[in-house]
Amino acid sequence: MYKIVLLRHGESQWNLENRFTGWTDVDLTEKGEAQAREAGHVLAKEGFRFDIAFTSLQTRANRTLNLCLESMNLSFIPVLKSWRLNERHYGALQGLDKSETAAKYGDEQVLVWRRSYDIPPPALELTDERFPGNDPRYADLPKDDLPQTECLKDCVARFLPYWDMEIKPRVAEGKSVIIAAHGNSLRSLYKHLAKVSDEDIIGVNIPTGMPLVFELNEKFETEKFYYLGDPEAVKKAMEAVANQGKAK
Amino acid sequence: MYKIVLLRHGESQWNLENRFTGWTDVDLTEKGEAQAREAGHVLAKEGFRFDIAFTSLQTRANRTLNLCLESMNLSFIPVLKSWRLNERHYGALQGLDKSETAAKYGDEQVLVWRRSYDIPPPALELTDERFPGNDPRYADLPKDDLPQTECLKDCVARFLPYWDMEIKPRVAEGKSVIIAAHGNSLRSLYKHLAKVSDEDIIGVNIPTGMPLVFELNEKFETEKFYYLGDPEAVKKAMEAVANQGKAK
Repeated sequence: MYKIVLLRHGESQWNLENRFTGWTDVDLTEKGEAQAREAGHVLAKEGFRFDIAFTSLQTRANRTLNLCLESMNLSFIPVLKSWRLNERHYGALQGLDKSETAAKYGDEQVLVWRRSYDIPPPALELTDERFPGNDPRYADLPKDDLPQTECLKDCVARFLPYWDMEIKPRVAEGKSVIIAAHGNSLRSLYKHLAKVSDEDIIGVNIPTGMPLVFELNEKFETEKFYYLGDPEAVKKAMEAVANQGKAK
Repeated sequence: MYKIVLLRHGESQWNLENRFTGWTDVDLTEKGEAQAREAGHVLAKEGFRFDIAFTSLQTRANRTLNLCLESMNLSFIPVLKSWRLNERHYGALQGLDKSETAAKYGDEQVLVWRRSYDIPPPALELTDERFPGNDPRYADLPKDDLPQTECLKDCVARFLPYWDMEIKPRVAEGKSVIIAAHGNSLRSLYKHLAKVSDEDIIGVNIPTGMPLVFELNEKFETEKFYYLGDPEAVKKAMEAVANQGKAK
């Protein structure tokens, strides 16, 4: 049996401000840093020890991983980073807050984008500075791979090949793995591992900074999954997820 | 022309206590953390931007790199870690302070170990907990590769293949490289790049937390090298190095 740990980055500045963050590279708040360290303490206390870590190309996830591994005295393990673990790209909505978005597109349209699995927000122009092709950190990637916008379905589609080709083989060879990433890239993995439907995954929200353990059998089928941490916080998180959409 | 940056980790607890640290995994002091952040600020101010970073399997170098890259908003770049960048292994001296060592082996013998290029301290037994083969972090490495003790010559011998096979090819293909490591692994590279003799390298000390830039021509010959940072501190560091042993 395998155990893998998913860790959503701690609170970021734009989580606080309720903006569509996506690929915008905002940093952790002090609370977010504390959450990352606490996640490491909890994991160490529960006897976890990782052989390899995976993260995105975004500072808030990179720093969450660094702080978590520091708390576990595991700063020396290999860390692989990929854009395929990045947050969902919110296209033309990136940088707007809720009220700006509603004023520009109308409440009803915003609800459609928030609640749909396969309807992406408006795409960015290739000349828009928010298009990843204009960010030097993605300069080595084929421009055709880089999103101008993404629905959750798109995020799943670019995350899963990385799971299949890079992460899963390491788990299969017995490596203990942690993945420090984002709400939607982790939701993509959650959907895959817990076999959640397209409709139900929309309602699943993974809380920030709380380690989520998946236990898989030798066929990589999920036996169970649970959050680690303060029992009250874990209970709330599990209930919230359960109410949002049941695994099928 | 190529520029590469060498960064020795910030002050560690045992630097303070004047112990033979070697592969003992001690952490940075608060001053060491501040040095690492300051190194990042200086590098960013001087217009450096890295595509890839290399570091050892030791926490004080890993954390120095993390803090430096955070200060430069470069937490997302690939980081490769290898035991070949570790500090020199001090064998049976590891963990002893100066006076303990003198009491056990005599002042004269200690001076021989400190001043020689090719005389290693006494080797550890394979059963000694200080032997890296007994540390889970080195479990994936061939036991024959792992040192029971090292003179500086040994450290050079295991560092240079990594330079030739992993770092130099990246520099040659145009990647901007930073190497965050230790006094003796960086001294090994310094010796190689600046063509310092076996005798003179013993006297060269690289200060902690101060970025050292090597400018190389297309044949990988050193055109010049210099420290970055506060002009007074840089002047002192350069003078200290110059007085310790001149490049030939």
